[in-house]
Amino acid sequence: MNRSRAARAPRRLHLNVNILHSGFLPSAWRPAGSDPRAFIDVQHYIRVAQIAEAGKLDAVFLADNAAIVDQIHFRPITALEPTVLLASVAAATRHIGLIATASTSYNEPYNIARRFATLDHVSGGRAGWNVVTTADLASARNFGRDAVPDHAQRYARAAEFTSVVKALWDSWEDDAFIGDQAAGRFIDTAKVQPVAHQGEFFSVQGPSTLPRTPQGHPVLVQAGGSGDGRTLAARHAEAVFSASQSFEEALAYARDLKSRAEALGRGPEALRVLPGLTTIIGDTEAAARRRRDELVDLIPWDYSLARLAGILGITPDRLGLDQRLPENLPLPGGGNGNHTFFNATLATARRRDLTTRDLTTRELIRELAGGGGHRVIVGTPEQIADDIERWFRAGAADGFNLMPDVLPDGLQAFVEGVVPLLQRRGIFRTDYEGPTLRDHLGLARPPGRSAESAAA
Amino acid sequence: MNRSRAARAPRRLHLNVNILHSGFLPSAWRPAGSDPRAFIDVQHYIRVAQIAEAGKLDAVFLADNAAIVDQIHFRPITALEPTVLLASVAAATRHIGLIATASTSYNEPYNIARRFATLDHVSGGRAGWNVVTTADLASARNFGRDAVPDHAQRYARAAEFTSVVKALWDSWEDDAFIGDQAAGRFIDTAKVQPVAHQGEFFSVQGPSTLPRTPQGHPVLVQAGGSGDGRTLAARHAEAVFSASQSFEEALAYARDLKSRAEALGRGPEALRVLPGLTTIIGDTEAAARRRRDELVDLIPWDYSLARLAGILGITPDRLGLDQRLPENLPLPGGGNGNHTFFNATLATARRRDLTTRDLTTRELIRELAGGGGHRVIVGTPEQIADDIERWFRAGAADGFNLMPDVLPDGLQAFVEGVVPLLQRRGIFRTDYEGPTLRDHLGLARPPGRSAESAAA
Repeated sequence: MNRSRAARAPRRLHLNVNILHSGFLPSAWRPAGSDPRAFIDVQHYIRVAQIAEAGKLDAVFLADNAAIVDQIHFRPITALEPTVLLASVAAATRHIGLIATASTSYNEPYNIARRFATLDHVSGGRAGWNVVTTADLASARNFGRDAVPDHAQRYARAAEFTSVVKALWDSWEDDAFIGDQAAGRFIDTAKVQPVAHQGEFFSVQGPSTLPRTPQGHPVLVQAGGSGDGRTLAARHAEAVFSASQSFEEALAYARDLKSRAEALGRGPEALRVLPGLTTIIGDTEAAARRRRDELVDLIPWDYSLARLAGILGITPDRLGLDQRLPENLPLPGGGNGNHTFFNATLATARRRDLTTRDLTTRELIRELAGGGGHRVIVGTPEQIADDIERWFRAGAADGFNLMPDVLPDGLQAFVEGVVPLLQRRGIFRTDYEGPTLRDHLGLARPPGRSAESAAA
Repeated sequence: MNRSRAARAPRRLHLNVNILHSGFLPSAWRPAGSDPRAFIDVQHYIRVAQIAEAGKLDAVFLADNAAIVDQIHFRPITALEPTVLLASVAAATRHIGLIATASTSYNEPYNIARRFATLDHVSGGRAGWNVVTTADLASARNFGRDAVPDHAQRYARAAEFTSVVKALWDSWEDDAFIGDQAAGRFIDTAKVQPVAHQGEFFSVQGPSTLPRTPQGHPVLVQAGGSGDGRTLAARHAEAVFSASQSFEEALAYARDLKSRAEALGRGPEALRVLPGLTTIIGDTEAAARRRRDELVDLIPWDYSLARLAGILGITPDRLGLDQRLPENLPLPGGGNGNHTFFNATLATARRRDLTTRDLTTRELIRELAGGGGHRVIVGTPEQIADDIERWFRAGAADGFNLMPDVLPDGLQAFVEGVVPLLQRRGIFRTDYEGPTLRDHLGLARPPGRSAESAAA
């Protein structure tokens, strides 16, 4: 019923903001207007979330790492644990969705089910869980391992983990709570049942300690680039953060993922594809490019070269700043490489400029706004709105996971400049239409166990 | 230096409130003024915390269970995960300390170190971690185990776990953060070092992802009743929630624990002993007793009998409501019984009344306000203040972990009635003297690695 209502409604654009501490650019903390301590300051995250809410965005998104995985002598990292941080943000906001990343490789499903259910309860139905499998060695070594579990193993664990978490979220039926003070009946225990899961990775008896959450399930988010990632996303994800550099690639990705989901019996409205998008905004395109170049110039070139080399799987000495990329780059190996970022980076490098040659490494780093594999648009609000509208209307994206260059002011510029254009063009909401993240994303509330039994 | 300052300051009483959802009484959700949904309503926890803050209490405390461990057909349980819940409470309060329970048996030290460090950062230095080892079978079965690990094993793991967490909290020196925007120097990486822990239970490389927290370490709390528990508390705990029914027992416990801590080289100011205390307040003693009996009468007697039998380690059929407790009760066996609650319950049962006989089971259940093993005072604000002052001045307690009968109104009555008396008698603060939980508890900030090296 929810599903058909959603299908009848006009298709709407969805926008999240990825609060990557000071912003997407590794140098975002350096301009005079930035606060270097922002990465550990809850007030920074609250301020960004409040700007996002003023702009009627769908959600804020927090990445996570279970180790130091970047060069902190020069730049901030994701430091604060996202579920705890977003619970504070929840108390200072009313509508904005709250998506936190947590790893299936270094947690237990019972704990993750409870933490995200709690976030959904305390936020009145605004929680989302970004499911990651954590591919770096430094994280593995913080959890008793000498090596990263291989790709297939990590995704097998992630699939079972996610199923157990969903079962725990459904272990209380929606109407299990009675709360009859006069009769002294608190819970209908017939409606609270074990999950009794016995699998390859986990044995979990259940039930959860928690009544079903406002959203039924917190929204499941995934970043499915690899084959295993797409399989997991097609099965479970309700929003997917992809990394597509080109329109064609994005269109192919969205179609592939949605057809995989439909093959698994999920409806066409079950899934939102939201490519990453870094925005660098200026009053003119030239001003925006100046802003970008000033920010990129504040990044040590050695750092940018090392980062690019890391994505390409080569040593930095093979890169010359004013040369083109080497030919015959090795494909990411061992099942653990990040194919998505590799391909995206290569696509940018081979995007011919006006002189019809490949970009030099220096030009490539500028185009990538320092690197990271996500698409960068540098331009005026009008140019950015045009690009967003084109991708959205063609179905290359249901929306975007925004990664502003610098926070909060890059988001402020987006909300003041781009959002009103998208609203005027009729593709973005002018106000929230419901209290939950599912309402914002137009996702149906999962029916839960009792409704399933009734339907069977 | 901090230590000697603390020693010179007048000794102050410390008061936490245990937000046990609707209150300590299993029937606390049933009176007309109570909200049955309080146990999953963040606004309830915020309201209680704000009342505690208005009363200048030290902290709110949240218990936790990783399974349903009580009879939910009749009563609420600890449902929401405490660190996430308290992060929301943090955003709605300014001074009150925030102590969350987390288990060392079913978590990883790296994750716990990050979550509590995050809570300390987002609250501006108000976090505390109550370290528990989780003794129930239902929890074990949610984490792949068929049996509860034995007592000694659990405490050995807890000791190693706590040491690793503290090492991670110290893995960044206090001045590792630079944040020099002009020079582009973000962190002094020489001051961020691995912990490189290899132990019996854990292998953790570190460092943490997080700068040292406002408190250095979140405050370490423990409830050390057994021998192993006291050893762990003496080594690590800065606040101990004990369960003492009698003044003599409390005095002996506090002396034992402090001498154990001193034997380990910790100063006399390193540790606060805070027995649990349920308060049932009335304008007259008779009114308070009526309130207690009405609340106890709202608990099914079968439930109270089963609960009491559970603490005593016998089957409920051995208890007659109007008979005294059976003789020759078995001591809690297998190293997993809760000796503290057993002894406390027995002490109450054998507290002779005016007719110099032991209490009947019904009378005992009334005295225990439904059970649970913590001490109950039923009386006027004056009577409660007298009792608190006596225990405090004699050194039987440094303060109390309050468990009001019904929340929030039992706490409101305490803050309005008892707190002003304690303030007038000069043993309780009239305002907060600093921003952190350590400030409230008069605990020194742990010096961290660089200061230790400098001292060596």
